[in-house]
Amino acid sequence: MSQPRTLGAILYPQFELLDLYGPLEMFGTVGPEIEIVTVAQQPGPVASTPGVETVARFGFDDAPRLDLLLLPGGIGTVPELQNEVLLDFLRARAPQAEVTMSVCSGSALLARAGLLDGRRATSNKVFFSLASDQSDAVDWVTEARWVEDGPFVTSSGVSAGTDMSLAVIANLFGRERAERVAMLAEYEWASDPSRDPFAKYLNKAKEILAG
Amino acid sequence: MSQPRTLGAILYPQFELLDLYGPLEMFGTVGPEIEIVTVAQQPGPVASTPGVETVARFGFDDAPRLDLLLLPGGIGTVPELQNEVLLDFLRARAPQAEVTMSVCSGSALLARAGLLDGRRATSNKVFFSLASDQSDAVDWVTEARWVEDGPFVTSSGVSAGTDMSLAVIANLFGRERAERVAMLAEYEWASDPSRDPFAKYLNKAKEILAG
Repeated sequence: MSQPRTLGAILYPQFELLDLYGPLEMFGTVGPEIEIVTVAQQPGPVASTPGVETVARFGFDDAPRLDLLLLPGGIGTVPELQNEVLLDFLRARAPQAEVTMSVCSGSALLARAGLLDGRRATSNKVFFSLASDQSDAVDWVTEARWVEDGPFVTSSGVSAGTDMSLAVIANLFGRERAERVAMLAEYEWASDPSRDPFAKYLNKAKEILAG
Repeated sequence: MSQPRTLGAILYPQFELLDLYGPLEMFGTVGPEIEIVTVAQQPGPVASTPGVETVARFGFDDAPRLDLLLLPGGIGTVPELQNEVLLDFLRARAPQAEVTMSVCSGSALLARAGLLDGRRATSNKVFFSLASDQSDAVDWVTEARWVEDGPFVTSSGVSAGTDMSLAVIANLFGRERAERVAMLAEYEWASDPSRDPFAKYLNKAKEILAG
């Protein structure tokens, strides 16, 4: 076997749980070819939106080489848009990574860092403008489960990250491997990136949260 | 608003990530009516199968009253079947809970604790016998996404726990609320408990893991 790839899961306060853990379930089932490490500005516990804490094993300063980057979204994205330490970490590490993935509003952070300029990308549907407001130089795709453009793969909201992860696993290890991982998780993979049942809710956050 | 319900997510070493976090995503999105706490034999970090650690806020000795119990499965289930401290905690707390949920091989632990005797229950499909071997007094259902019997709700493997959680949310807060939670997670809820696309893999662990 070749050297395992290291997947760096980036944490920040009030990340969305399934944005992180749907992908980590799938990558974690691949086997020894993937090592998962958690990384945050400082090592130690990081609280998700409902308060449950995940331990960041590394800080930005001591994180190892990361072959795959995974950036979740969530309510915590909003303050992080002003966090130059996080944005600089993304600017430094994404160009070294084989694949940089975002889930949900994670693409707002990639766009804010300027990493998506000139590329196609998507984001959470209900809160789409949170991402699209960060850069006019991105070709924002409003109807897609996920979008691949070179080394960047951005997904729609929350659960879409799980489907995206299986597509990245298929790219890296073959389609059969991805299907096996999905089966072991008893997961029905929505494997068509262009099929987006949630596009109809585009930017409808106000109506929905009031309802 | 009435008093929030406290959901106790039970952790043990090598729990399966999505067994825990699919449900916690959905319950965490419900709002202030649900408070999520993590509980393990000892408080502190608990490592999942791929090594990522979740912090248990409480130990078994100091856990508050738990209205809803969530018990994930995973490879770590196997040693826990011999852990009388965990089994005694389940025996003490399940009778006090409004709903006790298990995901995947979590039902093996409930069965081992004697809590499912005389009830219908299901489990992970590929590793089904891990659960069914624990008690002959359980009516094991081999084809079901999840099974409700009184206060016990047991789901099939990994992703099935997410669908089960939405059903429990529908029971507690109404169907519309569950559909809204699923939509916010851009999740296509498989809401029919009897539809089980993975039943065909029943007890096929050997063939699949060899293949």
